[in-house]
Amino acid sequence: MSRAFVHDGEEATFLGQLADLATAAILPHFRSRVVVDSKGVGRFDPVTVADRDAEQVIRAAIAARYPDDGVLGEEFGTTNSHADRVWVIDPIDGTRSFIAGLPVWGVLVGLLAGGRPAIGMMAQPFTGERFFGNGTRAWFTGPGGPRDLSVRPCASLDEAVLFTTAPDLFKADERTSYERVEKRVRLARYGADCYAYCMVAAGFVDAVVEAGLQTYDIVPLIPVIEGAGGRVTDWDGNPPLTGGQVVASGDARLHDRILDVLRG
Amino acid sequence: MSRAFVHDGEEATFLGQLADLATAAILPHFRSRVVVDSKGVGRFDPVTVADRDAEQVIRAAIAARYPDDGVLGEEFGTTNSHADRVWVIDPIDGTRSFIAGLPVWGVLVGLLAGGRPAIGMMAQPFTGERFFGNGTRAWFTGPGGPRDLSVRPCASLDEAVLFTTAPDLFKADERTSYERVEKRVRLARYGADCYAYCMVAAGFVDAVVEAGLQTYDIVPLIPVIEGAGGRVTDWDGNPPLTGGQVVASGDARLHDRILDVLRG
Repeated sequence: MSRAFVHDGEEATFLGQLADLATAAILPHFRSRVVVDSKGVGRFDPVTVADRDAEQVIRAAIAARYPDDGVLGEEFGTTNSHADRVWVIDPIDGTRSFIAGLPVWGVLVGLLAGGRPAIGMMAQPFTGERFFGNGTRAWFTGPGGPRDLSVRPCASLDEAVLFTTAPDLFKADERTSYERVEKRVRLARYGADCYAYCMVAAGFVDAVVEAGLQTYDIVPLIPVIEGAGGRVTDWDGNPPLTGGQVVASGDARLHDRILDVLRG
Repeated sequence: MSRAFVHDGEEATFLGQLADLATAAILPHFRSRVVVDSKGVGRFDPVTVADRDAEQVIRAAIAARYPDDGVLGEEFGTTNSHADRVWVIDPIDGTRSFIAGLPVWGVLVGLLAGGRPAIGMMAQPFTGERFFGNGTRAWFTGPGGPRDLSVRPCASLDEAVLFTTAPDLFKADERTSYERVEKRVRLARYGADCYAYCMVAAGFVDAVVEAGLQTYDIVPLIPVIEGAGGRVTDWDGNPPLTGGQVVASGDARLHDRILDVLRG
């Protein structure tokens, strides 16, 4: 029996259960004196027991509930990646913020069905915020009560609030392109990882421009951004399913303008 | 009767009451479609009704409780500034994060007694976190329950986690000095305003280096950082009571090293 059709209710409820499991695994380590290892060769790429434990509990829950589905996770790689349905996991997106005690990291889980992002979630265990989307709708649960998410209009760069995680994550030529955009916006801010994309979906940030992303950094966020009415592509305007260079915008007019300016 | 001696219990309790008032004034505007004005000439310096309302309720409470004391606030200036005791208020430190929906802004209130920082607080209304200090002790209330705050040891730059709010807030020569420090640390992050100083006090960040601060940006944080065992000075090693160039560190050895590297 094919599962290519995603039933929102079932999978969305399951995402919430995964968020509960990840919260229980991660929160005891947040603001503890957790050991930080570096995966980076040359540059500091932190990973903690919280990342590993959270991915393991999520993978175990997927294996128990949907044993035929594939899994792609940041810390433990791929399982059954040729399945029609593949779950994509970043157990802690924003580990640098996590180890510094800032609450702007999140648990990302998404589902690719037939190669397309079908449903996704960002969960922030410390604040209790959860952002969900299925590509046509996006919604929030957490402080202040549940509500739908929708982007805000912003047609021009000079009115835009722009985020990128860190300018030093760009290669030299990418940074030149990014800085052309940054120079024209109303406000540019750094440092928010997945949180910035969720604020695009919520209508408080207008765009995010990044590079060097992995599949698990962006795929779970695509149904949230698109479900809220936003756009997310690579710098050439194509679906950013393998990560790399990514632009997310709340307003399609702004999105086109950013792609133009990135091209120079 | 002189009030130069600050009784922790009374003033600390009062700071908590001010945080309650500020929370009630600000939280309805967080992640609302609040109108953003700019105070900046040339550059974008946002201010909202939330900043103004919060400062007004704080000032009114101080005037009612301690009518002889002076007040210095970001939005409404100084009142009775020659008093022996002066309350220092930044109603929303991190307005750029506030308007972007990120929870890394805070309400800052401190008390100068006889010209010296006596007690101070950072309150984060969305997460419910509050960081207090009196120069010899620092403590936290909020999620996870109350606890004392203490810095962590970090003797060398190459092990340090460093924050600054935004590299473009430095003047050109300051940025050159800052970048000498940034280049040597393990991890440099941007974008956290008062939150970064509180994470120094909590022992998850090792240092913050900034410039262009105002009195109200730093005075309320001094008793928190020092109370947790940290150091906070200007770039020449003097008390940073008028803002300007500021360094805060959890470890005095790291602090001395940063001052050396800033001097070049």
